[in-house]
Amino acid sequence: MPPMSALRIEARDPASRARAGVLHTAHGPVRTPAFVPLATKATVKGLLPAEVAELGFDIVLGNTFHLFLDPGEELIAGFGGLHRFMGWDRPIVTDSGGFQVFSMGHGTVADEVKGRTSGPAHHPERTGRVLAIEEAGVRFRSYLDGSERFMGPETSMAVQAALHSDLALVFDECTPFHVDRDYTARSTERTHRWLRRCLDWHGAHGPRDQLVYGIVQGGVHEDLRVASAEHVAAAAVDGIAIGGSLGADKPQMHEVVGWTTAVLDRVALDRPRHLLGIGDVDDLIRGVELGIDSFDCAMPTRLGRHGVALVPEPERRWRVDLTAGRFKHADEPIFDGCPCPACAAGLSRGYLRYLVHARELTGMRLLTIHNLAFVARLMADLRAAVLAGTLPATAGALRAGAAPGAAAAAPAAA
Amino acid sequence: MPPMSALRIEARDPASRARAGVLHTAHGPVRTPAFVPLATKATVKGLLPAEVAELGFDIVLGNTFHLFLDPGEELIAGFGGLHRFMGWDRPIVTDSGGFQVFSMGHGTVADEVKGRTSGPAHHPERTGRVLAIEEAGVRFRSYLDGSERFMGPETSMAVQAALHSDLALVFDECTPFHVDRDYTARSTERTHRWLRRCLDWHGAHGPRDQLVYGIVQGGVHEDLRVASAEHVAAAAVDGIAIGGSLGADKPQMHEVVGWTTAVLDRVALDRPRHLLGIGDVDDLIRGVELGIDSFDCAMPTRLGRHGVALVPEPERRWRVDLTAGRFKHADEPIFDGCPCPACAAGLSRGYLRYLVHARELTGMRLLTIHNLAFVARLMADLRAAVLAGTLPATAGALRAGAAPGAAAAAPAAA
Repeated sequence: MPPMSALRIEARDPASRARAGVLHTAHGPVRTPAFVPLATKATVKGLLPAEVAELGFDIVLGNTFHLFLDPGEELIAGFGGLHRFMGWDRPIVTDSGGFQVFSMGHGTVADEVKGRTSGPAHHPERTGRVLAIEEAGVRFRSYLDGSERFMGPETSMAVQAALHSDLALVFDECTPFHVDRDYTARSTERTHRWLRRCLDWHGAHGPRDQLVYGIVQGGVHEDLRVASAEHVAAAAVDGIAIGGSLGADKPQMHEVVGWTTAVLDRVALDRPRHLLGIGDVDDLIRGVELGIDSFDCAMPTRLGRHGVALVPEPERRWRVDLTAGRFKHADEPIFDGCPCPACAAGLSRGYLRYLVHARELTGMRLLTIHNLAFVARLMADLRAAVLAGTLPATAGALRAGAAPGAAAAAPAAA
Repeated sequence: MPPMSALRIEARDPASRARAGVLHTAHGPVRTPAFVPLATKATVKGLLPAEVAELGFDIVLGNTFHLFLDPGEELIAGFGGLHRFMGWDRPIVTDSGGFQVFSMGHGTVADEVKGRTSGPAHHPERTGRVLAIEEAGVRFRSYLDGSERFMGPETSMAVQAALHSDLALVFDECTPFHVDRDYTARSTERTHRWLRRCLDWHGAHGPRDQLVYGIVQGGVHEDLRVASAEHVAAAAVDGIAIGGSLGADKPQMHEVVGWTTAVLDRVALDRPRHLLGIGDVDDLIRGVELGIDSFDCAMPTRLGRHGVALVPEPERRWRVDLTAGRFKHADEPIFDGCPCPACAAGLSRGYLRYLVHARELTGMRLLTIHNLAFVARLMADLRAAVLAGTLPATAGALRAGAAPGAAAAAPAAA
């Protein structure tokens, strides 16, 4: 076990497992709880690094699978690593590539896990194909050129070492929802063996200043989740991520996360926890209450590119689809009082509808910024509330439709 | 003739026809000589209005043809006009739609005029079709939905009135290069009759605060150009635009523009002149020397979206194609000393190549900004040189490959 946690917890909510703090990385602090925007292909789609920082984000997530296939980790290493390549000098987490590799084989795991119904257009990796899942790793065909490629625990860690992210995730099988308990149990055991191999590789070859998170699997089975959480926490990991199938619906997802953080509160209280691929507004609020320190999700950026804006309207799942015809003449902003550049400039829903309809880059960008700004303010509110000891009231107000950002701004990172 | 020119000329270059000044419009001043970025569909592709202003541009060009078809001028008028619709409170010029309408019929006029070889993918209007060119105007099929539409002089002015641009262009036939002298002569006469109808409509119905530019046609025939320039200058137009086929190559284009501005120097010295659709670096320098006050062109923005960056390298036509494989590992910026956000942040040619290759929005945006920033500095240099009486030296240095922006910054508009 590492001698000291990278996470300094500054306050805990007495009414839940929530905590607020600062995660220390080689490229500086991450204020937690934090949302991590996706920089899948070495950029947050449409935004410049300075804009992402200005929105209030301390850390972004680079995609190991995509960067491995193109432009390749060696090319990026030649530029001095992912930070220098993409011009972002704050912390970066890289996922392990496991999720994407297994998505090709399991088909719809992504949608099941995230509750989405988006098609292959959004998941180019599905046009690739898994050739074999073996103890060594996974052989698959690249979706880019059809070439046969291999990724296993050592490959993933080597790629992440070359990218030189601040925070690496171990290679795991992202267990799908439709498999039985037996498959999930065997898969979780393999994930645990792969965890060992990842840590061995990293111990021998990994960058000294790169943190490593293990990943808890176990599907929707409480005993498997508990055992996996205990197993991962017992390893020399700097933090713990929660992955895999989290259930058929939100209540089950919250239950699965709750089982896991209950164990972690007991056996690894001080270590940082990351919830993989979750980012709906209500899930972020609940996740913070359940003791999650960081989240990543394509939701705010992907929705934005498709014309959907986040709004403080719980009864509409915090979403408004601006591509709808009824907004053609709508002269009001996305919502009154929103301080994002689109709303602050007085741009109307009607104009944004037109831009999205005309497939103008500006429309994708304005909605991406609006959505990320919304999530940034939400996370700042939740963090400030934990620090101030007022989380129940803040969470309640946000769940009732309060616009994020109404609360006092979060203090800067120490 | 209007009682007073909207252009206040502040200085003239004694060695050429160049002038520097300020064009006064309902939405404020335009420092001239000026480049006008295209905001074809109510946005400079990928940029926010504040960014365009920050780059140093005082005015943008909205496309009458595209906005007429979608979302329609009445919808935009319902938002209070194009300025409010797109959130840009500085001057806007609208073209007349003639160029796009006739591009559908004449096929390749755009490429001939601009010396480009880009295909229909860049010119969606070509998938539409002209049904009839008549004295009343042009009937055509919309490229959007196949519906039959009509545009004539009155339509164009009515659309521009509804958009409420600061500066409207009259409806003209953009004469192609491949037609004979006779066709060009007859076409130019019709353009003159349409000029009269445009001015009549505008006098009766147009916004009082909207300036109107006539358009000089006449193809590559000196007598026709001279007659057209005299005809347009004799009308009550606030400014004069130069359109149509400007020749087969750059020397001929410069000659045609020169014939026209020689006439204008004689008969309409104080009125502003706009050169339609021209924006190559050498053409901007030569155009300023020939007495042009403003230019619009898709070049900097369109090239940027396709991975081509402007560089101070005359021997390469001021262009570098970053999609070339040789830049895969290139660690240097587009060019040393460039102050644009991409270069200033140290982003490499290799990273930009990767982004363009991966079709990432960020890549298109960074190169759009780089190219517009290059042109903005170029125009500021030329303006400052005219004001300082040093145009020959500045133009010579820029033609020899000096990076724009090395000269003193242009003074702010009065």
